[in-house]
Amino acid sequence: MSIENYIRDIQDFPKPEIGFKDITPLLADPKATEECLELLLKGVNGKKIDKVVGVESRGFFFGTLLAQKLNAGFVPVRKPKKLPFTTISATYDLEYGTDTLEIHTDAIQKGDKVLIHDDVLATGGTAKAVCELVEKLGGEIVQCNFIMELTFLKGKEKIGEYQVYSPLKY
Amino acid sequence: MSIENYIRDIQDFPKPEIGFKDITPLLADPKATEECLELLLKGVNGKKIDKVVGVESRGFFFGTLLAQKLNAGFVPVRKPKKLPFTTISATYDLEYGTDTLEIHTDAIQKGDKVLIHDDVLATGGTAKAVCELVEKLGGEIVQCNFIMELTFLKGKEKIGEYQVYSPLKY
Repeated sequence: MSIENYIRDIQDFPKPEIGFKDITPLLADPKATEECLELLLKGVNGKKIDKVVGVESRGFFFGTLLAQKLNAGFVPVRKPKKLPFTTISATYDLEYGTDTLEIHTDAIQKGDKVLIHDDVLATGGTAKAVCELVEKLGGEIVQCNFIMELTFLKGKEKIGEYQVYSPLKY
Repeated sequence: MSIENYIRDIQDFPKPEIGFKDITPLLADPKATEECLELLLKGVNGKKIDKVVGVESRGFFFGTLLAQKLNAGFVPVRKPKKLPFTTISATYDLEYGTDTLEIHTDAIQKGDKVLIHDDVLATGGTAKAVCELVEKLGGEIVQCNFIMELTFLKGKEKIGEYQVYSPLKY
């Protein structure tokens, strides 16, 4: 089985000229999900992880699964006004405009070994903002972990100071 | 260990006079997460489940974990314009105004045994809309499964035709 067969290409989503990689067929199949999870774990390669940080919302799916397998806590990074406790935020540039992400201030303890997970590495803007949030709270980033990388968007260069892993590349 | 100790009360969130049950301390602790997952599974009681439907966004956390443990597929129900493939939608009343949820049309096969999961059962409006979506696609709802129920909001009455389970009650 190749998990690539469970990723669906959607043209012109979320806007014209954009090609979207839909992981819902992967999630709908428990064997494919298990195989994807194993591939993601292979990238972690037995390293000690205290917290898995998942990025809203598609980073929540495999983020929670990774945390459980790694015996680590799970921490959601969310869009503004979604997290109810005290937060810090990071704002980053998009092609047009900006976006903001938040994390709870008590989510990471100083020295925590952190795995950051999202479904797709695109331009790297989101991942870079998440790394910034984690480091502000004293976390040590072990790896930025994705299901797939859209290599033509060169996101890896933007977060080149961190270890980046993704089993699938497009 | 009682998982109740890992649920944080936040006053006046998301708006004044509303008390919010924050599950992020539970997610941040792998042992508490495991214990909560075991309690949720206990409610399922070995029944065959083909698909776990998780409700955006907090239903995604334990929804994916439940699906994996039950060897079932995971299906996200999301806010409008988040799902990229063909969808059907259900609109339901809130205290002021309405809200809409969507599901992919290929997410449920006719006859699928479905477990619906969300973190909190409040008024039941969301759960009722999700049940409607699942049944429109031909799914058979085995249980509506929550971490906790806010009993004073009487949500259980609204979805009384289905089996409702939650280990915690407030």
